[in-house]
Amino acid sequence: MKVNGQPCRTIWPAPDGRAVEIIDQTRLPHTWVTVRLENLIDAERAIRDMQVRGAPLIGVTAAYGVALAMRHSTSDAALEAACSVLLAARPTAVNLRWGIERMREFVAPLPEGARADAAWAEAARIAEEDVAINAEIGRHGAELIRDIHQHKQAPVNILTHCNAGWLATVDWGTALAPVYAAFDAGVPLHVWVDETRPRNQGASLTAWELGQHGVPHTLIVDNAGGHLMQHGQVDLVIVGCDRVTARGDVCNKIGTYLKALAAHDNNVPFYVALPTPTIDWYLQDGIREIPIEERAAEEVTHISGRDRDGQMRQVQICPDSTPAANYGFDVTPARLVGGLITERGVVAANAAAMKVLGAT
Amino acid sequence: MKVNGQPCRTIWPAPDGRAVEIIDQTRLPHTWVTVRLENLIDAERAIRDMQVRGAPLIGVTAAYGVALAMRHSTSDAALEAACSVLLAARPTAVNLRWGIERMREFVAPLPEGARADAAWAEAARIAEEDVAINAEIGRHGAELIRDIHQHKQAPVNILTHCNAGWLATVDWGTALAPVYAAFDAGVPLHVWVDETRPRNQGASLTAWELGQHGVPHTLIVDNAGGHLMQHGQVDLVIVGCDRVTARGDVCNKIGTYLKALAAHDNNVPFYVALPTPTIDWYLQDGIREIPIEERAAEEVTHISGRDRDGQMRQVQICPDSTPAANYGFDVTPARLVGGLITERGVVAANAAAMKVLGAT
Repeated sequence: MKVNGQPCRTIWPAPDGRAVEIIDQTRLPHTWVTVRLENLIDAERAIRDMQVRGAPLIGVTAAYGVALAMRHSTSDAALEAACSVLLAARPTAVNLRWGIERMREFVAPLPEGARADAAWAEAARIAEEDVAINAEIGRHGAELIRDIHQHKQAPVNILTHCNAGWLATVDWGTALAPVYAAFDAGVPLHVWVDETRPRNQGASLTAWELGQHGVPHTLIVDNAGGHLMQHGQVDLVIVGCDRVTARGDVCNKIGTYLKALAAHDNNVPFYVALPTPTIDWYLQDGIREIPIEERAAEEVTHISGRDRDGQMRQVQICPDSTPAANYGFDVTPARLVGGLITERGVVAANAAAMKVLGAT
Repeated sequence: MKVNGQPCRTIWPAPDGRAVEIIDQTRLPHTWVTVRLENLIDAERAIRDMQVRGAPLIGVTAAYGVALAMRHSTSDAALEAACSVLLAARPTAVNLRWGIERMREFVAPLPEGARADAAWAEAARIAEEDVAINAEIGRHGAELIRDIHQHKQAPVNILTHCNAGWLATVDWGTALAPVYAAFDAGVPLHVWVDETRPRNQGASLTAWELGQHGVPHTLIVDNAGGHLMQHGQVDLVIVGCDRVTARGDVCNKIGTYLKALAAHDNNVPFYVALPTPTIDWYLQDGIREIPIEERAAEEVTHISGRDRDGQMRQVQICPDSTPAANYGFDVTPARLVGGLITERGVVAANAAAMKVLGAT
């Protein structure tokens, strides 16, 4: 997608071929900085410090981290060390583990002399596969938006929660891929952006990337979506997800469930965009079976932003002694999900319909 | 309710009898400051600058404003001038108009020599009536909490949105009156406090007043309530309201509707606490008939809080160019409202049941 009018990805090989470059997402939306990752340590730091975030992008960065390590030493010991270091950067990130394992399994059988170039090529392949999957999600989802536009003959209002945009992937994003695909194809649309407390990824990242690409959008507080739906101002909800169960329950950023309830109550279609590997075929009842991470209370009691003097500051919004709870995700039951937008097409959120996605 | 262990109201006659004192609520939760209102101008400023907020408290402050004006001059012209000045302080506040009109109608027929003392007594009566109404709301609502406790035999978890506590009234509050009444009676309970973006009245005011009174509570983001209800962690929702229609539709702070949907989806009782004058008997369909105020975008794009150095600061949480929309309220349809807690008892939210509240 575009930044300052130029096409941009979240990670790309440096022109000299000796490093990869990333966007420092911790500085967004107020400062645009790219960072050069030249070695394993750089890659590990970028993941640990969340300069890269979003499951697909973390996986790709880790793959490049292995490839960068192979530039310095191609021994078995170096490979194992690289995998261990990267895995420890964010131990709970499923895609991190996936990206590292894929690299290990690909590189380990090769003769040492072939490993460096092969690892670099494999990391690039993983990145391209992510782009291709998201482009397909975009293509399928854009048809939904186009259909609404043809029926409505007015701009399509889409509500999204959190950031499942290109910043979370290599390009296109998941929830926002259909938005970008439809927008680029000339379908008139507008996006309501939930700010997504407590970490405000909507206000800081989704608003930023939509603005850079030129997509009309409006920031709202997480409380506002229900009112908008009651008054016909939302035609479609599209969100991303962290996990989907075999029967279609959707685990996504906290607050997604409330928007799904409002969509259901107002007959607004509610879609979840995802690459099919996000489906956990071993899970059924998401509410009972998916443990929800509790994060630091400080994310609730404090908010970061840019002061009038241009400095980043953190302010406390409650009394000193206030206890806070911070659940990271919630589960939207499949009965509230209108459909899943995947790289293989749009399917209903139930076990029978989803079976076509399990076939390989 | 208590502050620093001492009983406190939001407005009270000064010990010397020549002024009223208020809490400067713009400084909460970080600083506790009381302000002395000695004359009409002081009262007008306190209302305009929102040192006092909450419909009942605004009405009482305006009544005292008229009384303070009568201390200086008791002429008809002075009375009219006082009413005009106060009304202009926050022209859209319904209770402000109500308080002023009641004072005008009471004072105007009196001989000038009797007006000053009578006005002061009438303002005090209005304040006491507010306390009495809220105490009754508390008494009726506490029975609901007690019933849940007797059934559950464990602390009762109550979720509330925004601030409908004693800070919004003279004492007790509306939504929080049942909480204080049950707590003071020894019923074990705990309150989930929605932060209530964009103005964060939950984080700043509700958390503060519950903490001061010693009521166990936990601050959460507005996105979290649905997840808590899915997991049995909410036994009861109690919110306040700005207006209720004759058939029981409830207009309250933006986001209330989303919590009502979640409560309904999880069989959690959802109650609205209100003095019966809040019912607008001329309205039926709240969603269609109640216009929703749009407020400044800056409330969404910026957040105020206390910096590490103790200074109050405002930080920007989104890109410079981001458009934002800011709807102040939403309407919860009566079908999602389990009941109305009023000073006359608890009634169902429908026209037939509510008729008993209309009888005078």
